[in-house]
Amino acid sequence: MRPTGKLHLGNLVGALQNWIKLQDQYESFHFVADWHMLTTGYDNTVDLHQDTWEMVADWLACGLDPKKATFFVQSRLPEHAELHLLFSMITPLGWLERVPTYKEQLANIKDHDINTYGFLGYPLLQAADILMYKANAVPVGEDQVPHVELTREVARRFNLLFGKVHGAGMAKLEGKTFQEQSAQGKAEMIHRGLASVDGIFPEPESLLTSAPRLPGIDGRKMSKSYGNAIFLTDPPDVVSKKLATMVTDPARKRRTDPGNPDICPVFDLHKIFSSQETIDRVNRECRTAEIGCLDCKKLAAGHLNAFLASIQERRKPYEQNPRKVWDVLEEGTAKARAVAQTTMAEVRAAVRLT
Amino acid sequence: MRPTGKLHLGNLVGALQNWIKLQDQYESFHFVADWHMLTTGYDNTVDLHQDTWEMVADWLACGLDPKKATFFVQSRLPEHAELHLLFSMITPLGWLERVPTYKEQLANIKDHDINTYGFLGYPLLQAADILMYKANAVPVGEDQVPHVELTREVARRFNLLFGKVHGAGMAKLEGKTFQEQSAQGKAEMIHRGLASVDGIFPEPESLLTSAPRLPGIDGRKMSKSYGNAIFLTDPPDVVSKKLATMVTDPARKRRTDPGNPDICPVFDLHKIFSSQETIDRVNRECRTAEIGCLDCKKLAAGHLNAFLASIQERRKPYEQNPRKVWDVLEEGTAKARAVAQTTMAEVRAAVRLT
Repeated sequence: MRPTGKLHLGNLVGALQNWIKLQDQYESFHFVADWHMLTTGYDNTVDLHQDTWEMVADWLACGLDPKKATFFVQSRLPEHAELHLLFSMITPLGWLERVPTYKEQLANIKDHDINTYGFLGYPLLQAADILMYKANAVPVGEDQVPHVELTREVARRFNLLFGKVHGAGMAKLEGKTFQEQSAQGKAEMIHRGLASVDGIFPEPESLLTSAPRLPGIDGRKMSKSYGNAIFLTDPPDVVSKKLATMVTDPARKRRTDPGNPDICPVFDLHKIFSSQETIDRVNRECRTAEIGCLDCKKLAAGHLNAFLASIQERRKPYEQNPRKVWDVLEEGTAKARAVAQTTMAEVRAAVRLT
Repeated sequence: MRPTGKLHLGNLVGALQNWIKLQDQYESFHFVADWHMLTTGYDNTVDLHQDTWEMVADWLACGLDPKKATFFVQSRLPEHAELHLLFSMITPLGWLERVPTYKEQLANIKDHDINTYGFLGYPLLQAADILMYKANAVPVGEDQVPHVELTREVARRFNLLFGKVHGAGMAKLEGKTFQEQSAQGKAEMIHRGLASVDGIFPEPESLLTSAPRLPGIDGRKMSKSYGNAIFLTDPPDVVSKKLATMVTDPARKRRTDPGNPDICPVFDLHKIFSSQETIDRVNRECRTAEIGCLDCKKLAAGHLNAFLASIQERRKPYEQNPRKVWDVLEEGTAKARAVAQTTMAEVRAAVRLT
């Protein structure tokens, strides 16, 4: 996760809740993607340090547990840069140019000039981030699936060039085009009845998160940059005030008009944070105009604030002793470093570096 | 220098002799560019280890002195990959696409498919290699001058974004185009009467080597890949045999025809390796057909073999105890690492990484 500072409800519902579920099922690694932050934010890094602290404090407050999962800071592990560099030597330029998010973001991000070498290569840095830990699965949203697919292709190509199948016969790939090399790898797999070319890296799967839609107070997707977010650290009065201005079913103009919860952003919040009893009540009494939007929002604020109170309670010890967050990162980074160093020793030997 | 294995006379005259001169005038760093080797040779790394040994043994045999200069292996310093990655975040893609050697080599190198992300980025890796040591000067041939120019631009841009001039006011560059950012840096320099934006990196100069032309035995530029090279390790009989097949003035068809040393590749060798007496004699007696090409080549072989004998003599202790070469690299790599770690601590702080 990029260190964007304090997290909001959208981050929680879209990613963090899923990570918390997964930490009991998998050996998990989560990191502060500060190098990735630079791909779009190189021209203002003033808040990077504080933003890192705030984000990780929120991870801990939400229940991501450093005893179960490993938290680390990307930029503290030069091994990631090294693996990225080695991958860059074998990755066709076209693979990166064709990543769907690339041209899309180039066109969409207007507030920074991001047409850099690093921005083109950031899915390859992600591949290094993932493969360093020989991940079998990566929890991602729909838009990141192509990046995991690229990661699979990079793993396959590295295994083909430097893995055990070719080993001594590697010279056979020399002087061929990318396509010929890949075709030869496939032919060899079929010939030997293998599911994949033996090698150092597994090909990771996307673990798709089916996150419910979480609207911001303007009805659009909740996002820090839209200024429509409710933060995990917002105190009750701020939450109530934000909810009071939140858009509702636009057809319900007067208190006496019946409303339609199915298209009301406030009802989306109810569905996630309110009790079943409140959800049922709002769903019924909005349609009959028994309750008005203000009543409904008060109910939502009540449930949301109760939910946030427990998060904010768990956050307090870290706020009182900020070092604790850095200690968690320090310890996790050491754990991650041990894995990264083992992988890189294997990688350097496979590439036959001195 | 890329680890291409045993060095030939062209490497000696084109680079190594210059390095040896410079080691007395500068604090010098020389490295085995094994990552750079991967940009074109990723598909065959079988000989990388041995090639590294042979090349560094030749450095030592020629008189490059580990007491004066620092020798190291690039891939042993992940710091270089890290600095390259950070530079990638601020380097416009167009700067790399416009490097003259880029399109040229893409078109010329036919025996490997090199249209990779890493091949596009290798001048940026060079920039990291150079700036890591805050080099003031880089000994290069004419073709590498644009790479040093790119290095200067990268240093300037890094200093602009993360250096002392902007410091607290860095946010002012946010959201501007590359051109606007650069113009603002220039304006600020003029306003403050500075020669350059204060920062971490100096802007290095190219130290142009005026190497004499060294032809291979086919008359083309001596190059390992042309198969026309005389190696520093060639024994006397091999040198004599290679010289015997060397092309001469094509107009001198018979022994009795007068020759023209000015266009004879063998005379180019004389000018570098023979005594003034022999040079004068050949220059005179070739033009009058007093000596034939065979005589002339025997004279050249005599001088060349005497020259190579002392190099080969100095190489012997390393051949008898190959560890000695690895020890030199180990020690130099440790020295380089200390510098690299100091630079990276400064860089991480400037970028405000955690």
